[in-house]
Amino acid sequence: MPELRKDPVVGRWVIISTERSRRPTNFSPVGAQRSSGFCPFCPGAEDKTPPEVYALRANGGGANGPGWTVRVVPNKFPALQIEGTLDRRGEGLYDRMNGVGAHEVVIESPRHDQDLSDLPVEHVEQVLLAYRERVLDLHRDKRIRYVLIFKNHGDQAGATLEHTHTQLIATPIIPKNIQEELEGARRYWELKERCVFCDIVQQETAEGEGRRVVSMSERFVAMMPFASRFPFETWILPRRHDASYQTLAEPDEFRELAAMLKDTLSRLNRALDRPPFNFVLHTAPVSDQDLEYFHWHIEIMPTLTRVAGFEIGSGFYINPTPPEDAAQYLRAMSS
Amino acid sequence: MPELRKDPVVGRWVIISTERSRRPTNFSPVGAQRSSGFCPFCPGAEDKTPPEVYALRANGGGANGPGWTVRVVPNKFPALQIEGTLDRRGEGLYDRMNGVGAHEVVIESPRHDQDLSDLPVEHVEQVLLAYRERVLDLHRDKRIRYVLIFKNHGDQAGATLEHTHTQLIATPIIPKNIQEELEGARRYWELKERCVFCDIVQQETAEGEGRRVVSMSERFVAMMPFASRFPFETWILPRRHDASYQTLAEPDEFRELAAMLKDTLSRLNRALDRPPFNFVLHTAPVSDQDLEYFHWHIEIMPTLTRVAGFEIGSGFYINPTPPEDAAQYLRAMSS
Repeated sequence: MPELRKDPVVGRWVIISTERSRRPTNFSPVGAQRSSGFCPFCPGAEDKTPPEVYALRANGGGANGPGWTVRVVPNKFPALQIEGTLDRRGEGLYDRMNGVGAHEVVIESPRHDQDLSDLPVEHVEQVLLAYRERVLDLHRDKRIRYVLIFKNHGDQAGATLEHTHTQLIATPIIPKNIQEELEGARRYWELKERCVFCDIVQQETAEGEGRRVVSMSERFVAMMPFASRFPFETWILPRRHDASYQTLAEPDEFRELAAMLKDTLSRLNRALDRPPFNFVLHTAPVSDQDLEYFHWHIEIMPTLTRVAGFEIGSGFYINPTPPEDAAQYLRAMSS
Repeated sequence: MPELRKDPVVGRWVIISTERSRRPTNFSPVGAQRSSGFCPFCPGAEDKTPPEVYALRANGGGANGPGWTVRVVPNKFPALQIEGTLDRRGEGLYDRMNGVGAHEVVIESPRHDQDLSDLPVEHVEQVLLAYRERVLDLHRDKRIRYVLIFKNHGDQAGATLEHTHTQLIATPIIPKNIQEELEGARRYWELKERCVFCDIVQQETAEGEGRRVVSMSERFVAMMPFASRFPFETWILPRRHDASYQTLAEPDEFRELAAMLKDTLSRLNRALDRPPFNFVLHTAPVSDQDLEYFHWHIEIMPTLTRVAGFEIGSGFYINPTPPEDAAQYLRAMSS
């Protein structure tokens, strides 16, 4: 069983995978792993994944067979396991618990040769709806504190399979950076009684501003954060206050968000020659989905510079591209 | 002038390099940059770097000529600049200041073909002494709050030059992860009136323990942290309380630390076939170098798995190698 361990100084929880322990000889040089030709995410290979937990089949067809447009399956090599009790325990000054949770894969399209940004807006919308469905379902499990949705695209960004997909990890803890955002936003609320993200959106989209804005629609804005860690780091936020992604309910909203996500990724693709990238969906935790001080958003980070232990060890970032310049380039990429 | 910008939610300071702004066409695929044959760190090329700020020349010789064993120079492309005032200012809800500070390179050896772990212990000791000399000198500048010493070794770990070197960035802010460690350690002190790192060292080296210990000498221990983020992440700590690296004074201590650092890197090299790695020296800030609750240490992180925006975006780590297993492998590598 995987194990969650807490750093006794900074309080960070880490998953230690005790079952698939990797010996020194199992570490091939980073980047050397490549696809073998066979893809377990392609139609016809449905029996090569664990049984699906969600699928969209507009024209019918049985579970775990072809005919789907979006399909969600448990990860075959999960970082966390759905069975078991948390069993929190100490060991001297250390804290640990069982690696209970869920690790799922959203296969975004049956087409092996298309990326998320290549899909029609209606299809991206189905992917976004699948995220919500899975979050709502996993929220019913009382052991789950957070559902983290993220995408690794391209080998350099950590994707081990080429076929376009998103991952979802449901954890019995709140990941450290989300916790920090929650705390920072709460402190701002205590000081101002305003949501800091609402203030950011307001300042960035104010008359005469917009230097860091990439695009804007009725409900959403794509913009580069003032203190961007990475070149071309881009955030998509709802323009009006909304703490949780999973409370989005209007079909129109999903369509509009899908259009903006596709447009933003397409601009990045054109500006940067289809870069590897990650995105992470930041949303309020399961237990607090109506927070007045938090504001859900998507953080998109192209992999353009080497990010290694140094940044992670120090928390220190040097960004060679001012967000104002990056936003200007992306605005110039016609959609 | 580079600029320091603060994230309004989590308080992280980022350096935005506004002078050497990189346009989309300037991003070659990560890893594609390689050495051109000419090395500005080799003897004979002393005039290709800015004038040295420190050098060891046991057999004499003039500044900025050959004959040195360790040489420290300002970075030719500095992330921060030594001239100027901080000029802190706001812009709506944002905070920024000028990118004042220092960025230096410790050229560890005149030999292009040797890495830090290949050098004799006496030579590694000279490198460690150079770190201290530079820290003490930079501490005299009232604008400096922290001196961050780190090493990127190998292309995959972010090194852009092959010739063995360490970097030093002196900042007018305390880097976020150091700040978090300071705060975590202070909270522990408030609860227990003990240094958390002292407690960790005590628990790890106690009779019947030692599962995560790689090696131990009179004054130092090399061990894998309980909640390791990365496979084979290894820390070197003084066994007795000591908040600041720069207060090390006994020549014996430097010799002993040099021996342990060389031994640890050599074991990692043998176990993992000379992996790329980073190390970061964590020490108390300039203004608080005698803290009772902090404990300096070196964190060594081999680059064995892809670390990308995801980990950085979420603060969430999945480590496929339990530290107990990793420590066992390294113990078995005879020194």
